[in-house]
Amino acid sequence: MLRTRQQQAANKHNFGRAPLRRPGAVVAAGNHAVAAGGRQLPVQQHPLANIAENRLLHEYESMIKNAFDGIVPILKEISALQHDRDFQSRAQAIAQAKLGFSLPDSILDDAWVEQLDMKRLFAWSVFQTYKRYSDDFFAHDPLGNNDTKGFDEFLQACGFHTLDITPCSDGRLAHFIRYVLRLPHHSVRRKSYAGAMFDIDNNIQKWVETEMLRYREGVPNTADQPTRYLKMVAYHFSSVDPDHEGCAAHGSDTHQAAKSGLERLLEFKQAIENSFCCGASIDLLLIGLDTDTDAIRIHIPDEHGDISLDSFVDALEVFEQTQNMDASPARKHIEQTIEQCSVTAASGMKQLCGRLLENNMSQIMYVRNDYGRHYPDIGHAERFIGVGIGFEEKQLRNLMYFAYLNTVEESVADLDVGVSIFTRLNVSHGLPIPVVVRFDYHSNVPGARERAKQRCARVTRALLSRYSELAEKGFIQVMQLVRDCTSNGSVEVVDCTVDRKLVVGTL
Amino acid sequence: MLRTRQQQAANKHNFGRAPLRRPGAVVAAGNHAVAAGGRQLPVQQHPLANIAENRLLHEYESMIKNAFDGIVPILKEISALQHDRDFQSRAQAIAQAKLGFSLPDSILDDAWVEQLDMKRLFAWSVFQTYKRYSDDFFAHDPLGNNDTKGFDEFLQACGFHTLDITPCSDGRLAHFIRYVLRLPHHSVRRKSYAGAMFDIDNNIQKWVETEMLRYREGVPNTADQPTRYLKMVAYHFSSVDPDHEGCAAHGSDTHQAAKSGLERLLEFKQAIENSFCCGASIDLLLIGLDTDTDAIRIHIPDEHGDISLDSFVDALEVFEQTQNMDASPARKHIEQTIEQCSVTAASGMKQLCGRLLENNMSQIMYVRNDYGRHYPDIGHAERFIGVGIGFEEKQLRNLMYFAYLNTVEESVADLDVGVSIFTRLNVSHGLPIPVVVRFDYHSNVPGARERAKQRCARVTRALLSRYSELAEKGFIQVMQLVRDCTSNGSVEVVDCTVDRKLVVGTL
Repeated sequence: MLRTRQQQAANKHNFGRAPLRRPGAVVAAGNHAVAAGGRQLPVQQHPLANIAENRLLHEYESMIKNAFDGIVPILKEISALQHDRDFQSRAQAIAQAKLGFSLPDSILDDAWVEQLDMKRLFAWSVFQTYKRYSDDFFAHDPLGNNDTKGFDEFLQACGFHTLDITPCSDGRLAHFIRYVLRLPHHSVRRKSYAGAMFDIDNNIQKWVETEMLRYREGVPNTADQPTRYLKMVAYHFSSVDPDHEGCAAHGSDTHQAAKSGLERLLEFKQAIENSFCCGASIDLLLIGLDTDTDAIRIHIPDEHGDISLDSFVDALEVFEQTQNMDASPARKHIEQTIEQCSVTAASGMKQLCGRLLENNMSQIMYVRNDYGRHYPDIGHAERFIGVGIGFEEKQLRNLMYFAYLNTVEESVADLDVGVSIFTRLNVSHGLPIPVVVRFDYHSNVPGARERAKQRCARVTRALLSRYSELAEKGFIQVMQLVRDCTSNGSVEVVDCTVDRKLVVGTL
Repeated sequence: MLRTRQQQAANKHNFGRAPLRRPGAVVAAGNHAVAAGGRQLPVQQHPLANIAENRLLHEYESMIKNAFDGIVPILKEISALQHDRDFQSRAQAIAQAKLGFSLPDSILDDAWVEQLDMKRLFAWSVFQTYKRYSDDFFAHDPLGNNDTKGFDEFLQACGFHTLDITPCSDGRLAHFIRYVLRLPHHSVRRKSYAGAMFDIDNNIQKWVETEMLRYREGVPNTADQPTRYLKMVAYHFSSVDPDHEGCAAHGSDTHQAAKSGLERLLEFKQAIENSFCCGASIDLLLIGLDTDTDAIRIHIPDEHGDISLDSFVDALEVFEQTQNMDASPARKHIEQTIEQCSVTAASGMKQLCGRLLENNMSQIMYVRNDYGRHYPDIGHAERFIGVGIGFEEKQLRNLMYFAYLNTVEESVADLDVGVSIFTRLNVSHGLPIPVVVRFDYHSNVPGARERAKQRCARVTRALLSRYSELAEKGFIQVMQLVRDCTSNGSVEVVDCTVDRKLVVGTL
């Protein structure tokens, strides 16, 4: 029921005025799926796959990505008209009809003098599209699976009161929670770091806060419940081009990516054990993601919580082994595979890993049906850079390069990678790098909104100063946003390099 | 007993090889004290003052400040010899005898070519002196009053399990805990911010951690004890030159400094109350410090915890009213004064305020006996800038300008003020600004030392880049330090702009 309702709702979100555009959408046709370009793919089935959810997620992904990818062709169309007499009204008509928003008159006005400032128009369009996508997300919750309560109960039954995931900040892992693992994104804490190398001090703080809330407020459960904090790291690799399209932070070396993730996990565990008394500890889980197929590898811990780099369950193998079974034996097979991988693992850990594997079957089928053996964009193809703290709506693959940061100073490495990716993707084609700087805040903390705005301004200054050469030529455009998480409101634009005067009221 | 032993110990710390130099020390002579320059001051007494502690603290302060202030005359002496034949050995002999450490041969070696690089020699000497002062602090705990347990018990009896103080980061408040309030510095949490404008988010984290430890480990007491977290802000003003030597962050406006401090306190309280349930709250205290006399003003809260800007007890008045009494009536007078200021205050709060006022009597006497009505250096006279997280040993007035920070990016305002002060104090006389960048760490957290070193390097890079003009001319010299707080070890030098090659082994 829930899914059906959400699916109907998803069909309604056509970003308001602009029609839903999905030229590359795949439609199941008999036992073949039609991919972008008309190529026919054999339809893949899996007994454990959630077909309705796949359809919902795919429609959503296509709608959003098509909105971004439609910008360049539409701006080309507008550009071709720039010396026509009624250019301004025609341009606005096209923008309204096809993009769903109007363009800044101040930019169109000046076209006759030299030529249309396409860099600013492009950035404006990306920012507007992002804002509509973000508003839609917070207004309509289009990704479905809001069974937060059900998942929390399941997690606690498995012996965990918190699931805290650090994937790599690579845009090809942005959909890890909701698509790859098919989890309700509200139930999971996510903090992305380059190479999944999370900050231990920051994580200790989170652990402390979690324990305090359990003791003091009984949230999510009381401290006398024998559950643990589960920290998961998701490293990644590329099965198609392992030497080049793996994790940049680890030199595209899969073993190194996994090893570093495990080391960081162990350091975190040791930090908790050494810093707090009374048997304080946490549980660990290491997962690898093949960013070409979205198949995961789970390194199942043994009874002591120890994790082996060489011993894991490969979801792609499981998919192929179970593809032609019925649901019940397929589930049994998953259970047995986990059992074989780690006989001694705690039963709750096995249950959780079983759930993750089963969920991943849907995603493997999703990729196979829509793209064949692997995604066409195995490399970077992000549409913009996101910088700051927030971006809960970022649950789509290869849409945004995310630098989770408080200061540019601490995160130059992450940002340099992002800017270099976009220099290749955009600047080399004359297009600017659109950067969304955003800080979410809790409005129940006095002054928090003002401080979030100050953070935006500070980070923007630091960004424009670090990349001053690009910025001076208009190749970096920045929109600054804040958002109140307490009221689950939509984002609020506080400044924008495209046109500061336009910010108030227009965006 | 304890004080006597510590006093003996203090007499022994003469920084090792160099003799104790205190040309300006005051010696009580009959009913007069002899101040620097031979001027006689009438000896001030107070029935509640701790004379032995005053002597200990004064000897310590004189010893450290004289060590720093001796650098310039000794370097002048050495400079005068630079073209002599046996310059190098004579310079080293003077340095060893008078400064207590040798100078880098590499700098002395090059003197014959052009002339002695006094900027680097000066910075080296400041860094060495700082390091010896810091080592002495951690090795010998020269400030006395280690009755942490006694104070903690007193605090809890007053109804507080934590005393968390934010003074202004101005160097004239660096001695606030140990000298002005005469508290054991281990018992009090101190975080200095410009204008005492502490970071609310950071303070929420501290509150969360404190609550967690009470619930989980019963430290400092169990969570069922009806005690509260007490946050104190110390603003400051100048009675001698109120319009110029007050708090720079508040435009030397005393009312504004107090008002801003109170507002920040109320915001913090509201943040706790709004963010956590079950009656979570904190208690607040606002204190003003006259940086010329070290007399405090306590704004005593009423029974609801409300604080009035206009209603406070002035310690200087109390000092004069009680100076000629016996101890017991003097104490009674303090009690009555507090009672008059706030009849309805909680009895624990009154007790604590009484203790602070009584302790401050010693400090007022300290200043009067040693300097007369007020300090001679009512303005800035810091000897170096400290940057980072740590500096527990910084308990002396006007010795170090402290920018408590994690990144330069977030703290440019604080740093700009510091650099501008030192441009006046040092650069205008051809001397460089000595900056100590330091990050303390907990060695029980894996990788913490390495991360502390990386932070030092990052902050140093950002500093040298922000003040590149000064840095290129050698007017900013930086020493990088880390320190393990878990083992209470001494500081460890990790790099130094004076001479990188010298760092290993020599410093």
